[in-house]
Amino acid sequence: MDDIAPRAMKILAQLRALLGDRLSVNAGVLDQHGRGESWHPTAPPHAVVFPTTTEEVADVVKLCAAHKVPIVPFGAGTSLEGQVNAIHGGVCIDLSRMTRIVAVNTADMDCTIEAGVMRAQLNTYLRDQGLFFPVDPGAECTIGGMVATRASGTNAVRYGTMKESVLALTVVLPDGAIIQTGGRARKSAAGYDLTRLMVGSEGTLGVVTEVTLRLAAIPEATAAATVGFNSVDDAVNTVIAVIQSAIPIARIELLDELSVDAVNKYSNLSLPVRPTLFLEFHGSPTAVSECAGAVGEIATEHGGDGFQWADLAEDRSKLWEARHKAYYAGLALRPGSKGLVTDVCVPISRLAECIADTKADLAKASMPAPLLGHVGDGNFHVCFIIDPTKPDELHEAEHLHDRMVERAQAMGGTCTGEHGIGLGKIAHLKREAGEGVALMQRIKRAIDPQGIMNPGKMF
Amino acid sequence: MDDIAPRAMKILAQLRALLGDRLSVNAGVLDQHGRGESWHPTAPPHAVVFPTTTEEVADVVKLCAAHKVPIVPFGAGTSLEGQVNAIHGGVCIDLSRMTRIVAVNTADMDCTIEAGVMRAQLNTYLRDQGLFFPVDPGAECTIGGMVATRASGTNAVRYGTMKESVLALTVVLPDGAIIQTGGRARKSAAGYDLTRLMVGSEGTLGVVTEVTLRLAAIPEATAAATVGFNSVDDAVNTVIAVIQSAIPIARIELLDELSVDAVNKYSNLSLPVRPTLFLEFHGSPTAVSECAGAVGEIATEHGGDGFQWADLAEDRSKLWEARHKAYYAGLALRPGSKGLVTDVCVPISRLAECIADTKADLAKASMPAPLLGHVGDGNFHVCFIIDPTKPDELHEAEHLHDRMVERAQAMGGTCTGEHGIGLGKIAHLKREAGEGVALMQRIKRAIDPQGIMNPGKMF
Repeated sequence: MDDIAPRAMKILAQLRALLGDRLSVNAGVLDQHGRGESWHPTAPPHAVVFPTTTEEVADVVKLCAAHKVPIVPFGAGTSLEGQVNAIHGGVCIDLSRMTRIVAVNTADMDCTIEAGVMRAQLNTYLRDQGLFFPVDPGAECTIGGMVATRASGTNAVRYGTMKESVLALTVVLPDGAIIQTGGRARKSAAGYDLTRLMVGSEGTLGVVTEVTLRLAAIPEATAAATVGFNSVDDAVNTVIAVIQSAIPIARIELLDELSVDAVNKYSNLSLPVRPTLFLEFHGSPTAVSECAGAVGEIATEHGGDGFQWADLAEDRSKLWEARHKAYYAGLALRPGSKGLVTDVCVPISRLAECIADTKADLAKASMPAPLLGHVGDGNFHVCFIIDPTKPDELHEAEHLHDRMVERAQAMGGTCTGEHGIGLGKIAHLKREAGEGVALMQRIKRAIDPQGIMNPGKMF
Repeated sequence: MDDIAPRAMKILAQLRALLGDRLSVNAGVLDQHGRGESWHPTAPPHAVVFPTTTEEVADVVKLCAAHKVPIVPFGAGTSLEGQVNAIHGGVCIDLSRMTRIVAVNTADMDCTIEAGVMRAQLNTYLRDQGLFFPVDPGAECTIGGMVATRASGTNAVRYGTMKESVLALTVVLPDGAIIQTGGRARKSAAGYDLTRLMVGSEGTLGVVTEVTLRLAAIPEATAAATVGFNSVDDAVNTVIAVIQSAIPIARIELLDELSVDAVNKYSNLSLPVRPTLFLEFHGSPTAVSECAGAVGEIATEHGGDGFQWADLAEDRSKLWEARHKAYYAGLALRPGSKGLVTDVCVPISRLAECIADTKADLAKASMPAPLLGHVGDGNFHVCFIIDPTKPDELHEAEHLHDRMVERAQAMGGTCTGEHGIGLGKIAHLKREAGEGVALMQRIKRAIDPQGIMNPGKMF
């Protein structure tokens, strides 16, 4: 893609005619839109637009398509693999002003919202109706961004990921056509699953402008606890036994000792500094106590002790808030640092081995590297806290990351459970999907023949 | 597609060289492979092949691709919308000899099997390992066929459909390339969701040869019951209240009075002939009794009575066997008949209205038309039992079907919850997906540029 700058400049006047002051070429704004929250170098777009309707998005896309100008959809800018970095420039479509809650259907436990709605905003809105949206990545992100990344989080072991949670989407295709990918029925066998094709496509196939989501009922009873272990291995074996017993746990998260130390400092907790599981149970009071009892027994068998129950809602909030901010807590261990975050996910039977081998690698690392994760899904993260001024550290972290990915793939797992490919995992996807990548690229070319939708990402 | 016959004839010798006597052009065999289980007129292929490995399937596909001969994948021939009818002739790839259980990973609760494995075969194999595969359409079908149709069944309200159950596929693409669409990790954000693109694609994008499935633990306790109501409306309102209470019921199925009469006769039951719910509960003994108690109260509030509990495993089997054979029971009401089965699915809040309006239509129908369904998902079927020698009956049933579909679509629902599009719902898909159909066709052309994979279906 060459000569993009003059083409982008050429449409500025028309964009301004469409959007007035909801177009920005301010250097600070461009810069802020050229990066997510990880180490990938900032790559600003030529312009940022702030549409407020699907039709405006379609107008912008048509204009870009007519002049072959790259388009980068942007939510809250919290992605971890450079998904929003405008490496070829072009127009960034910031959806953060599309924040309407279009409809909440309490009786059907679903809602339709605009893509710029934040996860927290949605849950605040839903609370009085006895419903919540369970998918909860660590970031303060938009629902549209979560769709694009096929996001997940701590509740996935019980409630699934974005893949299971999205009923339908409104998408502006790369030629400006607007499609609905589905209706509100709980299931459908009507044609190709366009919804699932768009979920996780990282803005490379179109711009998601509206999302219809399945919601969950706020459970009658909730209990949360932390429990410490003598080793990461004991903690992981507890998780494996819980999952294999098919106990319907809502959350089961591992933090290694370094992660516990980081969240203690960042979120003002006072957990003993040792490998720890954060647990949560949802259901009827009987079901919760049955489930908590069963998990308690399993944890004790594996040497877990010092159960701390968070009985009050505010204590639970504090606990999960701390868990959600663990990435920032890690970065705070070393002021001025950036994070390179790994995201492998393996079959649960291989999890103990995968984590043990990873910990052995980390013992030799020259930078802090807390490990934590959604172990109930077989998914965990290592956050390499690197000094961005030292290229050696980035290389070292990338090398250790490569080892982790190869190990996970050899175990039947994946290089990414929830963060996506973006710029950072293109080679990993290639190794993992093999011939499948060629098929993905054929689909990409069929839907975006000009290659203007978030170019340079995923492939 | 013209001149297919000579092209198909031309490759017969080469197919025979590949497969020996696992190639058939016997008229009876061709005829049997030219139809599913519904009213759609038989359309035999020119030849049927019985490969036993993925590589053999790839060889057949390459040969067909080189000569532009249509390919129709075939499992057990139980589809209801003409999905296997070879309307352009060509080569039928019968996967029924690919029945290997490749691997069962008890610890991960997943398995990999060849596409020709029957649902019943798999569950018999799994039983001793404490696991089962929950998706259970009415037909005696292959897992590959269930993938192709995005099948569902009575357990979907608790365990999901094929969409949620498939972890990964081996697929032979229309050019003979073999791809794996995923691994065994519980979740992944690695590239486009090729698995979900293939699930429900009805053989139009490739031939599924191996399937990796999520399994479920056989519940510690199971309870099943039937309960009768004075009206379909009361039964449906019971279902809606149960679903809206988020009670984790495993199965909740409606049979109207005519369906009850049909299954009584066909499966030798003696249920009172009135609208009836079939219920099942899975979980710990406490959870099952709590759940059954809550549903019992709701049913009683809606006038449900005469609860009959199936305490023994064989009584439960008999009950669900009868439910699964309801389609054949309906056909048996009128010897020599064929079925036109509807499959709408609507948001649960609209289910009562949708079923009431449908029943009002059916009251005027000139043929028997039992109604039953997976009402917990908002999905129900009317089986129009038609005399295939009377075109007027087909037209009448099609007209009533059209009305049902339009009604469901207007309610935010779909024309098909689980049977797919095939030949029978092409117009319905067009109305439902609008511009989305053009996108599906672009994907189809990108993956199958020659249009040889199950041509004439879906679009």
